[in-house]
Amino acid sequence: MPSFMIEITLPDSSVRAYAPGVTPMDVAASISEGLARNVLSASFNGQIIESSTPLTASGSLVLYTWNDKEGKKAFWHSSAHILAQALESLYPGVKLTIGPAIDQGFYYDVDLPQGQVISDKDFETIEQKALEIAKGKHPFSMRAVSKADALKKYTAEGNEFKVELIENLADGTITFCDHDVFTDLCRGGHLPHTGWVKAFKILSVAGAYWRGDEQKKQLTRIYGISFPKQKDLTDYLALLEEAKKRDHRKLGKELELFTFSQKVGPGLPLWLPKGAALRARLEDFLKQAQKKAGYEMVVTPHIGQKELYVTSGHYAKYGADSFQPIKTPKLDEEFLLKPMNCPHHCEIYNTKPFSYKELPKRYAEFGTVYRYEQSGELHGLTRVRGFTQDDAHIFCTPEQLDQEFKNVIDLSLYVLNSLGFDNFRAQVSVRDLSQPEKYIGSPENWEKAEQSIINAAQEKGLDYVIEPGEAAFYGPKLDFMVSDALGRQWQLGTIQVDYNLPERFDLTYKGSDNELHRPVMIHRAPFGSMERFIALLLEHTGGNFPLWLTPNQVMVLPVSEKHEKYAEKVLNSLENHEIRGLIDARNETIGKKIREAEMSKVPFMIIVGDQETQEQTISVRKHGGESLGSISIETFVSTIDQEIKSTLKSFK
Amino acid sequence: MPSFMIEITLPDSSVRAYAPGVTPMDVAASISEGLARNVLSASFNGQIIESSTPLTASGSLVLYTWNDKEGKKAFWHSSAHILAQALESLYPGVKLTIGPAIDQGFYYDVDLPQGQVISDKDFETIEQKALEIAKGKHPFSMRAVSKADALKKYTAEGNEFKVELIENLADGTITFCDHDVFTDLCRGGHLPHTGWVKAFKILSVAGAYWRGDEQKKQLTRIYGISFPKQKDLTDYLALLEEAKKRDHRKLGKELELFTFSQKVGPGLPLWLPKGAALRARLEDFLKQAQKKAGYEMVVTPHIGQKELYVTSGHYAKYGADSFQPIKTPKLDEEFLLKPMNCPHHCEIYNTKPFSYKELPKRYAEFGTVYRYEQSGELHGLTRVRGFTQDDAHIFCTPEQLDQEFKNVIDLSLYVLNSLGFDNFRAQVSVRDLSQPEKYIGSPENWEKAEQSIINAAQEKGLDYVIEPGEAAFYGPKLDFMVSDALGRQWQLGTIQVDYNLPERFDLTYKGSDNELHRPVMIHRAPFGSMERFIALLLEHTGGNFPLWLTPNQVMVLPVSEKHEKYAEKVLNSLENHEIRGLIDARNETIGKKIREAEMSKVPFMIIVGDQETQEQTISVRKHGGESLGSISIETFVSTIDQEIKSTLKSFK
Repeated sequence: MPSFMIEITLPDSSVRAYAPGVTPMDVAASISEGLARNVLSASFNGQIIESSTPLTASGSLVLYTWNDKEGKKAFWHSSAHILAQALESLYPGVKLTIGPAIDQGFYYDVDLPQGQVISDKDFETIEQKALEIAKGKHPFSMRAVSKADALKKYTAEGNEFKVELIENLADGTITFCDHDVFTDLCRGGHLPHTGWVKAFKILSVAGAYWRGDEQKKQLTRIYGISFPKQKDLTDYLALLEEAKKRDHRKLGKELELFTFSQKVGPGLPLWLPKGAALRARLEDFLKQAQKKAGYEMVVTPHIGQKELYVTSGHYAKYGADSFQPIKTPKLDEEFLLKPMNCPHHCEIYNTKPFSYKELPKRYAEFGTVYRYEQSGELHGLTRVRGFTQDDAHIFCTPEQLDQEFKNVIDLSLYVLNSLGFDNFRAQVSVRDLSQPEKYIGSPENWEKAEQSIINAAQEKGLDYVIEPGEAAFYGPKLDFMVSDALGRQWQLGTIQVDYNLPERFDLTYKGSDNELHRPVMIHRAPFGSMERFIALLLEHTGGNFPLWLTPNQVMVLPVSEKHEKYAEKVLNSLENHEIRGLIDARNETIGKKIREAEMSKVPFMIIVGDQETQEQTISVRKHGGESLGSISIETFVSTIDQEIKSTLKSFK
Repeated sequence: MPSFMIEITLPDSSVRAYAPGVTPMDVAASISEGLARNVLSASFNGQIIESSTPLTASGSLVLYTWNDKEGKKAFWHSSAHILAQALESLYPGVKLTIGPAIDQGFYYDVDLPQGQVISDKDFETIEQKALEIAKGKHPFSMRAVSKADALKKYTAEGNEFKVELIENLADGTITFCDHDVFTDLCRGGHLPHTGWVKAFKILSVAGAYWRGDEQKKQLTRIYGISFPKQKDLTDYLALLEEAKKRDHRKLGKELELFTFSQKVGPGLPLWLPKGAALRARLEDFLKQAQKKAGYEMVVTPHIGQKELYVTSGHYAKYGADSFQPIKTPKLDEEFLLKPMNCPHHCEIYNTKPFSYKELPKRYAEFGTVYRYEQSGELHGLTRVRGFTQDDAHIFCTPEQLDQEFKNVIDLSLYVLNSLGFDNFRAQVSVRDLSQPEKYIGSPENWEKAEQSIINAAQEKGLDYVIEPGEAAFYGPKLDFMVSDALGRQWQLGTIQVDYNLPERFDLTYKGSDNELHRPVMIHRAPFGSMERFIALLLEHTGGNFPLWLTPNQVMVLPVSEKHEKYAEKVLNSLENHEIRGLIDARNETIGKKIREAEMSKVPFMIIVGDQETQEQTISVRKHGGESLGSISIETFVSTIDQEIKSTLKSFK
């Protein structure tokens, strides 16, 4: 027994004593055999380490499994090593550059020998080679290397990329990772050995510039993913297939919701009539709820003088990476596209003095903002350069914060429920108490605000997690993390407390003590951005929107020309009941019309032929094929009403 | 009798023969003594001349009276000479610069001798002096001067301003005008003599830079107005007083509709809750009508790549004087704030191919556009840097143009009628046939389009005038010239035919001949700009908006605290009938509450006290004082409904 022991603190705050040199894997085994079987990597005092790294001092240990983000990261990072080894073996002379784990899998950027390319046809060979390596159960093992030795290895190999990377590293910080016959420059964070990787798939290949710089050499980027079980891969590929079908860019085009124009510019969506109408319905839905919740709509311009954003602090923070200032024929004038609506709303608040009796003021605006994104980062409606926030800012007294926060949660839940999102949890982002210098505002206010948010989350029965250190420098916040129909996570409906802007804009109200006080500000946007929300809704529903929201609720299909008149009468009656629809009066077979209506995802097809005309009824077929038979228009109207009422309740 | 005669053609196309040397005044006298008494100035072959200028060749003569814009211009231009003489007499050593007639009156910019200023107190003295000069009935008489002589006169006087003006004139084109002992550099266009001016008023005094250049010397600008009768001045001053009361900037502040912020920037209105709601009601009103008229709403971004506006031609035309291009961190990218929505709508049209069967397409958008105006030009909501157009673009076949134009007139008339504008005429702007090179598109298309507009104006029974040469280079148009309650003219509801953009954006449709054809485009905006329209509406109604539009239709005034509960019940009932209102539950006397409700221009006050609570009735007082007595809520609701229905009918 060694003469002293080290104390290892685990995430549940329990403390265990071990001999120095114990590895995370040993610790796992000392807790349970099951845990040891599943440990992929670990962190010690916040630093990612191997599960085999010996611990020589007391400290905090976290063990990661496949269920943790960090566990997956170690898995995929290790898989990138395996991929690199496979490539070296299949493409002798290939130069490795960097190969990180990403959200879903990993990639490796390589410089292939002159004249060689990798295409779909080669994927299987690479996968086979990788699996063959994995099966060897080669342990990953880290070792420190001097800068000179590191440079020597890669200079000898003629790999100018690794040489460049190493030149930027400080001597004494450089490590290599070995497994099997393969060695790579690496910071660590691996699986115990390659054998954990049981399924391996190359997903795609693309060009990528060295260091992301168009001026530099173009490399080949190979994307892959790997899993601990074959079934995980099968499930993942099925999900990928389904996600492709539901891709909002594909559905948006098919349903004629939005488009992009090369001339207008990338990342700037143009909303086509059906999409604009859908957006307007979403906006009206929220406007109605907001009216009941005591919000007032305002309208502000899409630009502001540079000074406005200097005051708000946005210019200092985002200026350089953004759309640049707009000059005018007058020399000393500069405007900026607004990246946020808050500075404008602060100026509205500042229009007149307020008494505490008049608060809270709740200013809402569907405000279109512009933020520069590199064109490579743009993606359909989810990453754009211009988007409309369903923004609102609540100005309240510190005493009102608790109640206001709860009210906003109610509104956010109303939105999620009305749109069929029932799988979500809340994330409460609070300060990192060990770094008080990172935050503005008094600790008392922070304490109060964080407690307000946590109380509200508890009181509203939310499933929530607290994330220390995730708060913005100006206040804590709550986000809804929503799972879509494919189980993917989206961050929606941020509610943010802000002490900073009231200070910067010198906002005040007169308290009951007749003195001036600072109001607290809440930023909130239940949809977030109309663009991103509609993208999510498209992918979540596969384009089968809730009935109350969908562009056309019915398509009336006259069997032949002689039924058109009756079809018009039917549509007219429905429109009088606020039901939206179209008539497909084309000279096509009823079969073709049904097929196309099905494609366009219209929820109800109404077929009218001889019998229906004679009996003054309609034959109704739901999207997907179910028949409601031949019914009266009134029955149908009440069916639709019922279905809408079951999803769309009115707020409060 | 002279050996030959000249032929004078009058506006009614009649031709009269006169001896050479005949003056416009002689011609007037030959027509009628009344006309001669009223002729103020004239134009000959399109050139402005004096009524005393001898005519020596045949040509077209127009005689102007006070009822013509040109007549007023001569009157006020002459009055500026009188003002200048008065100033020289009262402020010896004053240097005259320029003194034009303007829309309402005239001004003169002068450089006062060192240490002298002109203020309100001096106005009467100046007016007296001017009237004294006027009474002298001094004829205005033009004479040609050589450049050398002209320079000599003003150099001797030490007037560097006139010297600068003359230096920029070509020798042989310089004329002076003399009256009484006064002489000024002048191009002409005067009254017969000073005696026509019977009323003379100095309106204000302001600073103005020489040549409008901040780098140059600051001068004193004296604004004045004059009339042929004292009563005209009295009426004008009363109108001015009324206009001041109705100034939309003043009313907008009082009614809390909009505000400006120094930080956001001049010319960029911020819409406060009541104003934003009013705007939204106007938009909803038009949206409903547009839906019935077959328009589809679209949404487009507020910026576009420079290339978009190069394609549309806007960049070449407006680039230099506008908000400058927005650069991004990427070197070769440039965006522009959109000055117009049409290029975006063209790109939407270009999203997919159209058949003639699918036309017309009518894309509508409440699109906010940005146009740079110098800060000195900005004025409340009527001259701004950002405004929202109720824009739409109709893409149709040439055969559909006629009908579409008529439909747009219907919609424009519906808007004007619903908002209480019943005094307007239409102005049809067509080509100048003598300058065909100024216009693009085939003469056949122009002929057809102009005829379409004229036919439509006739068929719709519009009171219209045709203005040759006023068409844009890309097509003819129709404007509604609306008179407000003070008789001032506003241009509203432009309808413009466009052959240019379909060409530039290569828009096509497949015709019945299966060939590709160019659609015709109609631009139209019944309100024009939401900002300017609301300014006009404020000044036209003095803030007493039509009942359907006004922010609060009722204000419920509980007589004391114990009537508050009943007041709430009343407001609740009214809100269930879609009537908008507030309760004034402040602890103030009912008298004060009534006075303030009157100030806030709420159309109906509902007073509830003991009797009303007991009898479950309401006492209703209209804005302005009329009492509707004690009535039931139901009676009141039907009164309001009736009043709204009488102004706001549904479209078609």
